[in-house]
Amino acid sequence: MSKIPPDIDQLALGVLSNDKMLLGKAITLIESTLPSDMKLTDGLLRELMPHTGKSVRIGITGVPGVGKSTFIESFGTHIAAHHKIAVLAIDPSSKKTKGSILGDKTRMTNLATHPNAFIRPSPAGITMGGVAAKTREVMLLCEAAGYEVVIVETVGVGQSETEVYEMVDFFLLLMLAGAGDELQGIKKGILEMADLIAINKADGENKIQTAKAKIQLESALHLFPEPEAGFVTQVLTCSAIENIGIYEIWDTINNFIQRVKESSLFDDRRKKQNLYWFYEYINRQITSSFYNSKIVVEKIGSIKAMVENGKISPQEGGRMLLNLQGTK
Amino acid sequence: MSKIPPDIDQLALGVLSNDKMLLGKAITLIESTLPSDMKLTDGLLRELMPHTGKSVRIGITGVPGVGKSTFIESFGTHIAAHHKIAVLAIDPSSKKTKGSILGDKTRMTNLATHPNAFIRPSPAGITMGGVAAKTREVMLLCEAAGYEVVIVETVGVGQSETEVYEMVDFFLLLMLAGAGDELQGIKKGILEMADLIAINKADGENKIQTAKAKIQLESALHLFPEPEAGFVTQVLTCSAIENIGIYEIWDTINNFIQRVKESSLFDDRRKKQNLYWFYEYINRQITSSFYNSKIVVEKIGSIKAMVENGKISPQEGGRMLLNLQGTK
Repeated sequence: MSKIPPDIDQLALGVLSNDKMLLGKAITLIESTLPSDMKLTDGLLRELMPHTGKSVRIGITGVPGVGKSTFIESFGTHIAAHHKIAVLAIDPSSKKTKGSILGDKTRMTNLATHPNAFIRPSPAGITMGGVAAKTREVMLLCEAAGYEVVIVETVGVGQSETEVYEMVDFFLLLMLAGAGDELQGIKKGILEMADLIAINKADGENKIQTAKAKIQLESALHLFPEPEAGFVTQVLTCSAIENIGIYEIWDTINNFIQRVKESSLFDDRRKKQNLYWFYEYINRQITSSFYNSKIVVEKIGSIKAMVENGKISPQEGGRMLLNLQGTK
Repeated sequence: MSKIPPDIDQLALGVLSNDKMLLGKAITLIESTLPSDMKLTDGLLRELMPHTGKSVRIGITGVPGVGKSTFIESFGTHIAAHHKIAVLAIDPSSKKTKGSILGDKTRMTNLATHPNAFIRPSPAGITMGGVAAKTREVMLLCEAAGYEVVIVETVGVGQSETEVYEMVDFFLLLMLAGAGDELQGIKKGILEMADLIAINKADGENKIQTAKAKIQLESALHLFPEPEAGFVTQVLTCSAIENIGIYEIWDTINNFIQRVKESSLFDDRRKKQNLYWFYEYINRQITSSFYNSKIVVEKIGSIKAMVENGKISPQEGGRMLLNLQGTK
């Protein structure tokens, strides 16, 4: 942050009028981890909260090589023809360099220059977890700025898929057809989070294999418990590079949103998500303040070693550390 | 606990000689939640730790109606012919009544009276989580008492499957064949934890359907990422009531254990599990001491309501509560 504290009212007005320079400033403030910026952050969000929540929030994940950037470029450009769309990324491994920011914009050239689109790379430089929590607040800013669709993309490092799932209305899993090992690289539980699976690169010689993979997946999904919303996960095929099947995916999402809004499912999911991030924040703060205390940093290594090797029980090790730190 | 503190050395000797009366006393001590008993617990476990870890730890789960008790009765009796076996249960919803303890023994009549078997119901009366952590310590006692196989059974309430998975060497999922909805009632992620799936009730008219379900499941499992140990999850059929296929399951488990012991996988999994319970214990203690503090109990309701309804951001709500409690 600059040395002069920003004027919160001015920032809020800037966000509400979608002034991209001020929106950028507001995002930088939100992404700050300086304790002195927290009050400003709270003040800014408090002004903007009444203007948030009105977008369709879409999470997108898929292993590297699945064509995620090309898909978002094609899908986002399709949406941008009629709606203001923001694309946010969660990459807990990203470092703040000009390279990675440029990277995000160069891998989606059309969308990046579209007047209806706003692309923001992953917050970086956040050490103790919390990248996703920050991205969620950036999403709120984008909503206040009038973006009607927010895409949150994840590279799938660590817990990031679960975190994206916990902040969106619709979770899209991109896949590729392969020789029976379609899900190689997909982490446990992801398949069951998906509201829709889209098999990409359904073009050229790949078409037959993609159609086969669709059938295989559909029959496998029948064995799964139904997702919360009560709709069986659909499987569609698409070719981002040839712009085939993209409209159908957007259509499926719209139908889904309409149906969950007709019941209480939409609001219920959003409320649950609000509480998820509330508890997530508190628990992260109190555990990280414990693990970062001087005595714990000093002693945890030797206690862990005894626990790991079965010299003492995990509970005794835990009690030793808690007593040292004076928590219990 | 009785008013006179138990003699820890005497208890330890009693456990090591598998004196069932003293083993029962030791378990009651371990299950105690009185802060004054923690030192005794630590002392007892410390004496016994060198004698733990030598059993084969098997987790068993399955939805109600799958025939879990009948399966464990048949499977356990088969094992008890050659090995000392302990059966522990995790049911976070159980209440300590004579009924439930009796229940556990009456639903496995043969096994309960077998000289090589020891059956212990779920610890009860533990309020703030921790049922599984206690069961894990009871498992250590059983190992010190010379039990060579420990079965940990779960009814699947809350997080209990994950917790059982985190304390065993082998995770067995019991299922039933049904009309395409075999996995109804199975929670997310369970299928991917299983080292083996056994389809029970493969008897009488059910035989054909069971064989079909086996094929369906096997092809679905090919779509999954391989479990950590690198072995594709197997599917077997069995009839607990007719004692068919029970030997094959025990055989599969033994082969698995032999193979993981030949590599470092067995030790790695155990070490990881030790640390899982270490962190689980610490995090539970520090979060529950936060959420049980007077000011938090008083104020969390109104703050949660504001967060839930989007009046304030989850992070602001979290910071409000943390400030009130003086944590940050």
